[in-house]
Amino acid sequence: MDTSGYGNDNYESLHNAASDDELVDIIAGATLDFSITDDVPPLDPEYSLGHDAYTNGKTGNTKLMDLLDEPVPGVGTYEDFNTIDWVREKSKDRDRHREITSKSKLSTPALLESISDAFSGWLLMLLIGLWSGALAGGIDILAHWLTDLKEGLCLSGFWYDHEHCCWGSNETTFQERDKCPEWQSWAELLGGSSVGASAYIVDYLMFIIWALLFAFLAVILVRAFAPYACGSGIPEIKTILSGFIIRGYLGKWTLIIKTVTLVLAVSSGLSLGKEGPLVHVACCCANILCHLFTKYRKNEAKRREVLSAAAAVGVSVAFGAPIGGVLFSLEEVSYYFPLKTLWRSFFAALVAAFTLRSINPFGNSRLVLFYVEFHTPWHMVELVPFVLLGIFGGLWGAIFIRANIAWCRRRKNTCLGRYPVLEVLVVTGATALLSFPNSYTRMSGSELISELFNDCSLLDSSQLCGYISSPDNRSDSGLLSATSDRPLGPTAYSNTIPDRPAGPDVYTALWQLALALVFKMLITVVTFGMKVPSGLFIPSMAVGAIAGRLLGVGMEQLALNHHDSAIFKSWCSPGADCITPGLYAMVGAAACLGGVTRMTISLVVIMFELTGGLEYIVPLMAATMTSKWVADAFGREGIYEAHIRLNGYPFLEPKEEYGSKALAQDVMRPRRSDPPLAVLTQEGMSVGEVEAMVADTDYSGFPVVVCQESQRLVGFILRRDLVISLENARQRQEGVVSASLVFFTDHVPAQPTSGPPAVKLRGILDLSPFTVTDHTPMEITVDIFRKLGLRQSLVTHNGRLLGIITKKDVLKHMAQMANRDPDSILFN
Amino acid sequence: MDTSGYGNDNYESLHNAASDDELVDIIAGATLDFSITDDVPPLDPEYSLGHDAYTNGKTGNTKLMDLLDEPVPGVGTYEDFNTIDWVREKSKDRDRHREITSKSKLSTPALLESISDAFSGWLLMLLIGLWSGALAGGIDILAHWLTDLKEGLCLSGFWYDHEHCCWGSNETTFQERDKCPEWQSWAELLGGSSVGASAYIVDYLMFIIWALLFAFLAVILVRAFAPYACGSGIPEIKTILSGFIIRGYLGKWTLIIKTVTLVLAVSSGLSLGKEGPLVHVACCCANILCHLFTKYRKNEAKRREVLSAAAAVGVSVAFGAPIGGVLFSLEEVSYYFPLKTLWRSFFAALVAAFTLRSINPFGNSRLVLFYVEFHTPWHMVELVPFVLLGIFGGLWGAIFIRANIAWCRRRKNTCLGRYPVLEVLVVTGATALLSFPNSYTRMSGSELISELFNDCSLLDSSQLCGYISSPDNRSDSGLLSATSDRPLGPTAYSNTIPDRPAGPDVYTALWQLALALVFKMLITVVTFGMKVPSGLFIPSMAVGAIAGRLLGVGMEQLALNHHDSAIFKSWCSPGADCITPGLYAMVGAAACLGGVTRMTISLVVIMFELTGGLEYIVPLMAATMTSKWVADAFGREGIYEAHIRLNGYPFLEPKEEYGSKALAQDVMRPRRSDPPLAVLTQEGMSVGEVEAMVADTDYSGFPVVVCQESQRLVGFILRRDLVISLENARQRQEGVVSASLVFFTDHVPAQPTSGPPAVKLRGILDLSPFTVTDHTPMEITVDIFRKLGLRQSLVTHNGRLLGIITKKDVLKHMAQMANRDPDSILFN
Repeated sequence: MDTSGYGNDNYESLHNAASDDELVDIIAGATLDFSITDDVPPLDPEYSLGHDAYTNGKTGNTKLMDLLDEPVPGVGTYEDFNTIDWVREKSKDRDRHREITSKSKLSTPALLESISDAFSGWLLMLLIGLWSGALAGGIDILAHWLTDLKEGLCLSGFWYDHEHCCWGSNETTFQERDKCPEWQSWAELLGGSSVGASAYIVDYLMFIIWALLFAFLAVILVRAFAPYACGSGIPEIKTILSGFIIRGYLGKWTLIIKTVTLVLAVSSGLSLGKEGPLVHVACCCANILCHLFTKYRKNEAKRREVLSAAAAVGVSVAFGAPIGGVLFSLEEVSYYFPLKTLWRSFFAALVAAFTLRSINPFGNSRLVLFYVEFHTPWHMVELVPFVLLGIFGGLWGAIFIRANIAWCRRRKNTCLGRYPVLEVLVVTGATALLSFPNSYTRMSGSELISELFNDCSLLDSSQLCGYISSPDNRSDSGLLSATSDRPLGPTAYSNTIPDRPAGPDVYTALWQLALALVFKMLITVVTFGMKVPSGLFIPSMAVGAIAGRLLGVGMEQLALNHHDSAIFKSWCSPGADCITPGLYAMVGAAACLGGVTRMTISLVVIMFELTGGLEYIVPLMAATMTSKWVADAFGREGIYEAHIRLNGYPFLEPKEEYGSKALAQDVMRPRRSDPPLAVLTQEGMSVGEVEAMVADTDYSGFPVVVCQESQRLVGFILRRDLVISLENARQRQEGVVSASLVFFTDHVPAQPTSGPPAVKLRGILDLSPFTVTDHTPMEITVDIFRKLGLRQSLVTHNGRLLGIITKKDVLKHMAQMANRDPDSILFN
Repeated sequence: MDTSGYGNDNYESLHNAASDDELVDIIAGATLDFSITDDVPPLDPEYSLGHDAYTNGKTGNTKLMDLLDEPVPGVGTYEDFNTIDWVREKSKDRDRHREITSKSKLSTPALLESISDAFSGWLLMLLIGLWSGALAGGIDILAHWLTDLKEGLCLSGFWYDHEHCCWGSNETTFQERDKCPEWQSWAELLGGSSVGASAYIVDYLMFIIWALLFAFLAVILVRAFAPYACGSGIPEIKTILSGFIIRGYLGKWTLIIKTVTLVLAVSSGLSLGKEGPLVHVACCCANILCHLFTKYRKNEAKRREVLSAAAAVGVSVAFGAPIGGVLFSLEEVSYYFPLKTLWRSFFAALVAAFTLRSINPFGNSRLVLFYVEFHTPWHMVELVPFVLLGIFGGLWGAIFIRANIAWCRRRKNTCLGRYPVLEVLVVTGATALLSFPNSYTRMSGSELISELFNDCSLLDSSQLCGYISSPDNRSDSGLLSATSDRPLGPTAYSNTIPDRPAGPDVYTALWQLALALVFKMLITVVTFGMKVPSGLFIPSMAVGAIAGRLLGVGMEQLALNHHDSAIFKSWCSPGADCITPGLYAMVGAAACLGGVTRMTISLVVIMFELTGGLEYIVPLMAATMTSKWVADAFGREGIYEAHIRLNGYPFLEPKEEYGSKALAQDVMRPRRSDPPLAVLTQEGMSVGEVEAMVADTDYSGFPVVVCQESQRLVGFILRRDLVISLENARQRQEGVVSASLVFFTDHVPAQPTSGPPAVKLRGILDLSPFTVTDHTPMEITVDIFRKLGLRQSLVTHNGRLLGIITKKDVLKHMAQMANRDPDSILFN
């Protein structure tokens, strides 16, 4: 089994070792020790042989060679639930690169290898784009079909969804495009009738039964095969990208199960979206494809560059927004994002978007269902309602985060968490029960958003467009057949139509929307965080879009009835198309999404790519800015950061402002009351003494000093490397016993023939440990940790070693500063 | 005079002190010493008083107070041509922020101040956007008018340009839109006739005279009032953003002169654009506006955040591409670019774009002249010519950089550099002489690009659209009057027109374009780098657009004549519009610009914002990628990096891969043969000894150690701070003489009443200097310098101080690695 990467799939061993609930405990428990390894790493033959290419074929004659000359297998790799050392990983990659470059000048095959190495990154991006795009297309098509299956079946072929089923029908006119004889509702199929109370009840029951079935399948699959497949995945991916290792989180089982269960969860009608999980799916693809290329398989830092790009791909296919996806990855997800990665991410995002488009899951040559084109400009006065939407979005975001986190904490701490299947079934049942009667909740989230964004054209049959037309523009609306226009998208023929008074249909729709708003707001709080794949983008946008549309229609009627008041007189003459309610819906969606996730530029760019008009950026920007300010006033954490903190992942937030005046000496260990720091001396300690020190302590590494008196620092050695090397020396080097001396020095003194042979360990000693002085302000120390991606830093005073600060210490200290209990909250 | 910022305008003092050529020497000389100050800083009363708000009103009773308790004025500021310490600046800002936050809880005014402080960043962005947008609009309008002035004058008002002059005319039809009686060429005005050889000669002469006049004015204004206003400005802004200080480079005189001379230089017909200088202009605006806000005036790091945003604004108004501008700033210009800045930059870029649009300089409600909308899709086969264009762009970029750098070096090193005015006049004369006969070189760069990007419509009267039409679509082209359509832009009515055979007009145009290509390629090499404001974007794009259009027309005719060959058969039936030559022009422009500047994602996004269609990103991306690969094969430096190196600016390129295996001990000073490092001891040195050491050496700072024997490091003190503090102590503290002891320790021993009073300097000692060990690989050291923005790092071995590495040492070492002479090339 390959153990060099965190992403290879060790689901099986995990699953055999522990039940699902224990698994969660494993994660939680191991998270506690992200900088401390409790157990001695395994050194079974399978582990120490084989998985490192550069040791292959050499292990046979190890005993004859000096230990210094050969890397010990296992040295330089990481345990599960550990933090990687970015500096070391990047150095390793530079060494590899240097070696290939220097070799390439010698022979043609080496030159070719060098070129293929240089282009392997691009090839990888191409493959990720193709695969993710194809998967996203498949998910869209399947989810569509399953969602429609809840309502009925196509007689001309059960594999058609409602829309495709009716495309084949000849009788379809625009008004009747959703009704064709081939498509039969369950009431028609089972009871033979499509009207009446009994038919309604049959449909209702079938709707609930299908929803429960889908949800049950989803939660059972997740629990049985890939516990990591639940949730949105973005908090975990952020943590992984910041340098944490969670083996199997991006493995092939997770990919398969997440893809399947995502389709099921979306189809079940739960208030969740597929955008977050698509990021996870794309990252799984990327991680699996990384195994094809040595460069990325072997290096945790390089692999994280690829994963950053994959996050961009996920958003690109979710929203059809390649630029927005890249900015999302930059702003929201990534930790280490060099410019080279930016360019490659863009390439991958573009490939994925075009793959998805060639699959054409929505049959409209658009990447998403809710692409819109607005035609009428907006007016400066409208900034007032836009800012109001921003305030609504910010408030909703702040409230949602608090409520959701409180609910998730309750799930963690009470017996609720013990019955995840039941929870999912209850929530699904409630959702289905409450959403069926209201057509706006019955439809899927994307369809709802698409309908709300839509600018009413004359031919629109939707309830929301039930305006009272004036006679002259009503005349020909019934004559036109729109079948041929269908692929152009719902808004293709909506040009300047004057504002009209709302008819009774519109008022009915408004009531239904208001109810839908309350329902969505409540149900999303309990849905997000359940043990099924669940994205938050679509539900958040749906809430905002409903609120925006309500406000938009209100503004429209206000302008219509008061067009000679001071506010409207200057720009809204009667008979003009002043207000676009669809734009309000879009602004509201952006505001709510911004409030929940605290995205800024990426959100605006995603929305810009949905509308395609530079003109509508200003309203979006106004609402997003307001929303962020309002939400930040209640707490600076977005939903993903809140979930990271809830789960206690060791994530050093790069955006958070750190405002403490503490110094390094206040944070470092040992504290004043603690025993002194466990240090090794560079010479004079025996193997037995070193092993005793390792056994007595649980530190992840030890500083090496010149001598105990001077405490002058020589270097730093990692516990894992030390243990492996000592075991290795005992096994392979003849005569090494507990009394053998350990030397970290450059030159080992000539050995007395009588004593046991010495063990030379300078090779695994890090001679360039990072140090800060005891007077360094913590804000600078935190900055260094963030920017360089350190695991630990040593603290000196006037040249003497004083202590050590690990990333865990930094995180604990920051938790303390924020008045959170460092132990119970951060590492539960 | 305010001396705390580099951007305040000390033009006058500079100008009085030195002639312009000496100025250049000052810059060059000072650049040598970017980490070393040769002269003791001035300590005149004006300097030491007043400019630091926190010392105001306290200076009167200084003598009574302990020196430790009060910051000495001047400490913590920078000399001109010095590198800032990012860590210190960011700490300062955090302290300020902390103070405001803690105060805000006490009283309402303080709370209001805290809120206004938080929003001052946004206000500043708004102001920058408004001002820059307005300036850009003014520049566009003026440049248009002056360019047209070279050809003639409007009788109905001399302030109208050609286009606006003829808008008022009643007789204008589409074919004759450029000819109206109100607009008179110089031949008509002076000679009375518009035809014949003599009229041509009069026009020709007037064209050259006006060009020479404009160019002369531009170069004289630059030399007389603001020598920093010449060139593109982007290399210098990159250097400033990386932490270097060039006072006056972003001052008000530079702004005024650069704006005026930019208009003149563009109008003179030289092969230069206004995009780079617009970035400089926006940065000047930002820097001047920074003076309104204490937060930004006082802090060099915060100011650089604002300047990064201003760079985005510059590109936003130059190309009407706010997102592209932000990415340009991120990718190409900025050094320290936190996410908060990304969001603010976007806001500023958007405000600027909308300000420019409300000015509407081109009368088409677009932000740029060369906005296009294509309507026909492209085919996969066309990727072959697109990649060919990429190869051309890459080759041209590599050749251009080499040729231009060689020419600029010749200018620097030979007598050519002594006659900048003559040089400008000669080049302008040659440009005007050669460009007048060819209509494609006579028009301005933007107009040329606009014409080349343009997809031929039926009604297009341009030579390039002189296709032989089939009778049926020719019929009505003469009847339509296009006057009313004009504001919609040239491509508004170009829908699917089948490919047609080229007529004689097209062949003439192709010949002229081929000549224009050669001319532009040659003249741009000598133009870029002259002593007038000059941007490189437009000339590079023009070269690429010409090449692209030539290839595009070629492909079109090939497809037309061989539409049943294997290549075209499957996708290009006769009578279809298969090939869009305008798209080829755009792809070529992107390829050439990419080859010269090595921009990647920002370039593609800018081009995407020009076309507005996601569909055309793929050709752009293919060409840009190819172009970058080809150009990188000849040398990894873009034109801006090459100019930075040519001028010897201390810029630590964040993108460059550093591949050396050297260790810190190989780079640090003192080298093995040098005298030992000059260090101060924390106690026991007298004022006289310290002053002697300062006088004997030219280091920019001194490490402080416990004692000479142990060499254990205590801290680091900057030369400037030390000198100022000692002078201050001698002047203000009673009884301080040369024999007074200097203490850097925390506790000063009780003073003997007999001896002179001690000077306590712990307050200015940096107790958290950065250290690396002697075994730290240079690649890691370089990474630390880049990421943390260090000025220097101390080097230790086993806890003992061994040496020091400054940013200059790092740069010298990197130059050496690249086989460049570190002294003559890097710091000439």
